[in-house]
Amino acid sequence: MNPVWLTVLGTAAAVPSFEHYTSGLLLSYLNDEQWLIDCGEGIQVPFFRYGGNYNKLRRIFISHLHADHYIGLVGLIMSMHMHGRTTPLTIYAPHGLADILTAVLRASDTQLKYNIDYQSIPTNAARVIYQDKKWEVLAFPLKHRIPTVGFRISQVQAERRFLTEKGDGIPYEYIRRMKEGEDILAEDGTLLYKSEDYTEPLPALSFAYCSDTAYDESVIEYCREVTLLYHESTFLHSEKELAEKTLHATAKEAALIAHQCQAKHLLLGHFSYRHPDRRVFEEEARSIFPSVYTAKEGMKLNLNQLNYSKTHA
Amino acid sequence: MNPVWLTVLGTAAAVPSFEHYTSGLLLSYLNDEQWLIDCGEGIQVPFFRYGGNYNKLRRIFISHLHADHYIGLVGLIMSMHMHGRTTPLTIYAPHGLADILTAVLRASDTQLKYNIDYQSIPTNAARVIYQDKKWEVLAFPLKHRIPTVGFRISQVQAERRFLTEKGDGIPYEYIRRMKEGEDILAEDGTLLYKSEDYTEPLPALSFAYCSDTAYDESVIEYCREVTLLYHESTFLHSEKELAEKTLHATAKEAALIAHQCQAKHLLLGHFSYRHPDRRVFEEEARSIFPSVYTAKEGMKLNLNQLNYSKTHA
Repeated sequence: MNPVWLTVLGTAAAVPSFEHYTSGLLLSYLNDEQWLIDCGEGIQVPFFRYGGNYNKLRRIFISHLHADHYIGLVGLIMSMHMHGRTTPLTIYAPHGLADILTAVLRASDTQLKYNIDYQSIPTNAARVIYQDKKWEVLAFPLKHRIPTVGFRISQVQAERRFLTEKGDGIPYEYIRRMKEGEDILAEDGTLLYKSEDYTEPLPALSFAYCSDTAYDESVIEYCREVTLLYHESTFLHSEKELAEKTLHATAKEAALIAHQCQAKHLLLGHFSYRHPDRRVFEEEARSIFPSVYTAKEGMKLNLNQLNYSKTHA
Repeated sequence: MNPVWLTVLGTAAAVPSFEHYTSGLLLSYLNDEQWLIDCGEGIQVPFFRYGGNYNKLRRIFISHLHADHYIGLVGLIMSMHMHGRTTPLTIYAPHGLADILTAVLRASDTQLKYNIDYQSIPTNAARVIYQDKKWEVLAFPLKHRIPTVGFRISQVQAERRFLTEKGDGIPYEYIRRMKEGEDILAEDGTLLYKSEDYTEPLPALSFAYCSDTAYDESVIEYCREVTLLYHESTFLHSEKELAEKTLHATAKEAALIAHQCQAKHLLLGHFSYRHPDRRVFEEEARSIFPSVYTAKEGMKLNLNQLNYSKTHA
């Protein structure tokens, strides 16, 4: 099975610091592409340092137009331009982003060496915004101060695992094709190997992203049984009043969503500066949901591995 | 004499890194205000860490609309808003900035709690863009790919130094007034102390900022005899071809400008990532001009002190 890596680039709510960047997550090895989710101020720095690749980065998904979730695009786009990128880039975002970035490029008299395709995301209802043979991206509404969406990125066609004990001596090329679900026929059309006799389906991989949002049970249906749920956790439950006022969630609420949608694992992020020691968020969430990760700049999670483990140590 | 501090916030050309921010310089204690010159991506982080004060920051001067010189305004403006700032802010920049920042604020549905007054800087000729009783700011054209200005910030009325050897026993309040140039009269109008008998004029303080620019002797008249000249030094002279192509300057050229305008001291900044060890810039400049500082994030220079020293160690 192919590894799919999630790399955490930024973890801070609203304000960056020397220690933390604002929102940004990088997915690697999706059809050999990299995808970026949200892009706060300065994200090009951890992007470049933690394995981001200018030419592999093909799609960027922006949840909403609060600047701490997208203003880093300006620097990233300019750096890729200066680096000579020619590969096209697609940016999916709620309406309004294209106008802002176009105005910034016009003011600097920049003619980009690569094309940016801006895809406007509907924010009033769930919608599939991207699909290929292997992956599908669903955008769904979150509950925040301005139109905001979450994302569910799902494997459409789960991979199949080759049953090594049955297939001794079968050529590698046949194995590769059977793992894709193809039966192997001889030149005259007779069946040589039937895929389902030699392989078994693997559970499909999925990742959901919910930031920024108040506690909102309507997301549960979109995040059902995901391998990994990223849910914002700006506050602790003792700050519930502040969370309600700002339409953000607490660590406890993130865990409640993870529990109700039966996620395998939960990744907390988007932490308020009020709690420099982030273990408090994890502790609060663990009392409700067993497998909790606390986002940290540079952290890498192998989503395929998470797909087969019940919980982490 | 009152201290006037220059704090370096960012030193990198074009691209930030974990070690360096893009352009940003902070001036403190100008009429008890702070002024910021240029504001690259993420500058709010060193601003806050190295003594920037949300309420003291009253004026921001932007040299040109390349994003690495102003995009950090978005985060800084939002952070001051969230922090409850109500003090008005004036931003001086070439035409176009107000539209961009207004679009960003509109997209995030933000009604700022404080007023921003955008002052458009003419870029085709030198012009005084700010003046009060003590300070004057002149903007003058630089030679770059898009309209760009440098700044000269000068003390209008130089302070006077009290001659302690002459004034034993004179009340502090009289001394304070004589340092401002005021003669001290008795109630009946007779002269008690004449300011010029007890004080002597100090050389007026001035600071000039030239970034980004190709080597351009037309700036010399605007930077004449400044206390400190900040001049960009993106490249070494061995990279002269690259400098010419991108309309940037070399360390040698920065020193030539400092020499010709008879600056007291030179501060180099805006360094290409090509030379992580910045001592090479300083070495090149020193062969032409004696007193060279190499900008470094967090560096603080007391401009009044520099005004009385011929060179630094």
